[in-house]
Amino acid sequence: MIARSEGRLAQDRSYRAFDVDSVKEYVVGQEEVAERLGTAKPDEIRAREVGDGNLNLVFIVEGPNGAVVVKQALPYVRLVGDSWPLPLKRAYFEWNALTRQAAHQAHRLPRLFHFDALNALMVMEYLAPHIILRKELIAGKRFGHLAEHIGVFLAETLFHGSDLYLDTAKKKADMALFADNVELCAITENVVFTDPYFDAPLNRWTRPQMDGPARALQSDRAVKVGVQEMLCCFTTKSEALLHGDLHTGSVMVTATDTRIIDPEFAFYGPMGFDVGAFFANLFLAYFAQDGHESYPDERDTYGEWLLETAESVWSVFAERFARLWREERRGILYPRTLFEDVGDETGSTVGLHRFLGGVFEDAVGFAGAKMVRRLVGLAHVEDMESIGDPDRRAACEAKALLMGRELLVNRTTFGDIYGLSCLARAVRRERNLL
Amino acid sequence: MIARSEGRLAQDRSYRAFDVDSVKEYVVGQEEVAERLGTAKPDEIRAREVGDGNLNLVFIVEGPNGAVVVKQALPYVRLVGDSWPLPLKRAYFEWNALTRQAAHQAHRLPRLFHFDALNALMVMEYLAPHIILRKELIAGKRFGHLAEHIGVFLAETLFHGSDLYLDTAKKKADMALFADNVELCAITENVVFTDPYFDAPLNRWTRPQMDGPARALQSDRAVKVGVQEMLCCFTTKSEALLHGDLHTGSVMVTATDTRIIDPEFAFYGPMGFDVGAFFANLFLAYFAQDGHESYPDERDTYGEWLLETAESVWSVFAERFARLWREERRGILYPRTLFEDVGDETGSTVGLHRFLGGVFEDAVGFAGAKMVRRLVGLAHVEDMESIGDPDRRAACEAKALLMGRELLVNRTTFGDIYGLSCLARAVRRERNLL
Repeated sequence: MIARSEGRLAQDRSYRAFDVDSVKEYVVGQEEVAERLGTAKPDEIRAREVGDGNLNLVFIVEGPNGAVVVKQALPYVRLVGDSWPLPLKRAYFEWNALTRQAAHQAHRLPRLFHFDALNALMVMEYLAPHIILRKELIAGKRFGHLAEHIGVFLAETLFHGSDLYLDTAKKKADMALFADNVELCAITENVVFTDPYFDAPLNRWTRPQMDGPARALQSDRAVKVGVQEMLCCFTTKSEALLHGDLHTGSVMVTATDTRIIDPEFAFYGPMGFDVGAFFANLFLAYFAQDGHESYPDERDTYGEWLLETAESVWSVFAERFARLWREERRGILYPRTLFEDVGDETGSTVGLHRFLGGVFEDAVGFAGAKMVRRLVGLAHVEDMESIGDPDRRAACEAKALLMGRELLVNRTTFGDIYGLSCLARAVRRERNLL
Repeated sequence: MIARSEGRLAQDRSYRAFDVDSVKEYVVGQEEVAERLGTAKPDEIRAREVGDGNLNLVFIVEGPNGAVVVKQALPYVRLVGDSWPLPLKRAYFEWNALTRQAAHQAHRLPRLFHFDALNALMVMEYLAPHIILRKELIAGKRFGHLAEHIGVFLAETLFHGSDLYLDTAKKKADMALFADNVELCAITENVVFTDPYFDAPLNRWTRPQMDGPARALQSDRAVKVGVQEMLCCFTTKSEALLHGDLHTGSVMVTATDTRIIDPEFAFYGPMGFDVGAFFANLFLAYFAQDGHESYPDERDTYGEWLLETAESVWSVFAERFARLWREERRGILYPRTLFEDVGDETGSTVGLHRFLGGVFEDAVGFAGAKMVRRLVGLAHVEDMESIGDPDRRAACEAKALLMGRELLVNRTTFGDIYGLSCLARAVRRERNLL
């Protein structure tokens, strides 16, 4: 469903949306990229368009010696069509986010080869044999290094993108730069925090099975207030440069490697948003498992692995964050002059754990918001969508929706990640939700 | 103590710091201003420099028909000298803040006549017979409309400068604009939240009487963590366009009128910072009263009036904020589609009071930080400084410091403004603090 909007394209004079032919001409014109592909001749190159996301064109371009990915922004939301325009500058923010992440976690990103602001396009490493994590979780596969890689990535990018590390003038200037990524923030503000809680035209859910829970949500006062408080947090807490869309479709994995892609929603927001987004998608995968079983209890231990993964992500995150706090804290927050320099390591440690407690509380609330919106909002997840039988799917979705609701309403209740696992198990045992 | 820095001035080629002669030449060249003064001839004009603040030149310029104030930024901190440079662009942010405040509270500001970005200068109404509120509180004068005026000013400016009212794209762009007021934010970040809590060179206090309390503060783990949490809030919570320096020296009063001046520290920060700044300065005035008495208990009822004023500021603020929430809420937060439009006014009201609870909690913490820094940091307040006897002054200061400490450490404890009055009275009854 790639809509064309000639009028809008004409406004961006230098921009042209590529197709599988023109992208070949383009890449061979970039010396470094051509070298990587092993040819400067378009007819020695194969290209295919594989974008399955909601927003962009993605080409895999292969030459005799190697392959690259070309990701190009379209001037509208691909999922919806040209009735929903979206500025090309998001590619600029994505590139800026990638280069900042690369300063500390380059090995968790695709290698970055080329950025073209006018064409809203970037050329990156073609990750092979990497698979999108979400698909692997649906298939029931385990990844022994996943939690370690994600936890470290979160700690390294969030810590180094915050006032705990950055020079305050640089942080404020960078925050101002990303504040212009307003249209992508607005998507989140609308489709995550607002639309699922009223009768918005683009909402959808498994009908008629989920009609009851979806309607109940819209008249659930506590959850509406809860999600609006998370929206306040999202839109006002400029704590760190976020990935902004860290779900399991933004992670590519092999048995030993993990890469994080697609930070086009990047902006300075609350750390808990990235952490909570990943939690939410693990929990969605957890509740979907009953729908993927070919016999009862087949996926029980796999479900437990998903919960353990969330637990490990947090513990790895907290441990690495604590190390960075001790070793690399040089921003304006918790200055060493007040703590370590006067022998007060205890005060610094109390401050750290209060800080982490705040991140966790935010993460719980955001996890709830992210779960709810994938069940009764515009964009759903393949974890659930791939469950063919609508009754069975709705049974999974109703439980996931209840979990999301409880996380939003009781986000100050769960003092640690193990409490969330406990909640997930209890919700899974619920009967008669539909 | 006006230091000259020829080298630095030369860098700003178009800028020149005015004196009482050159400012006359300047104002008569501005048609509208000359008209107001009633002459275009410099020799018919009188000018005097009256700046008693920490940062700027302030001229009162009088002609045959009227008078104006000319406020000009200096390229360094006037209080310290040219060893502490400070950019002239702060006048631009002050002017921008004034014009935004004027959209909703013009009658609480001086009238604005002229802005000159190159000379970092603005021309405003000369407020007469207005007196700086702080001086009147030292003199023990009461103002029957003060709480009403300040409470409404806070509600109107903070509500209309937030995501509750502003279009989100405009708010983000404006936040980005004010993010460049980084040097003035840095002053607050340093002198309010950091320096008083370690042995910073510019700290000062009443010596030797306050040595004990000042040193105790620097090894008070709970207060150090508390103030750093307030710094996190200050530097990351982009909730509304703030005045940024709303102490009783930024308010001018008559028996019936109140005007708020000097928002050069303006930026998008937490609403509670402005509210707490005003509370802090009322509490500082409260604890100073014992030092102004000419006989025991002379100022007791006046002290109670100060506490009642803080109480009324909050209740007026909350009431007006609630009205704006109901009547003018049209930003992205708490959208009517989720609440009023589906008949859920109750949910909206719950959201409002949770929101106000957050503002109050922030205000309590910021009030504590603002008190502490005026007692053991760089810049003190005349309320205390005007107490000639150092023993008597220190007795007042030690109590104010204890109050500030408790506000920082127990900011979640005091559920309403009456709790703060209660705390103030208890602290005032303390013996043996020195």
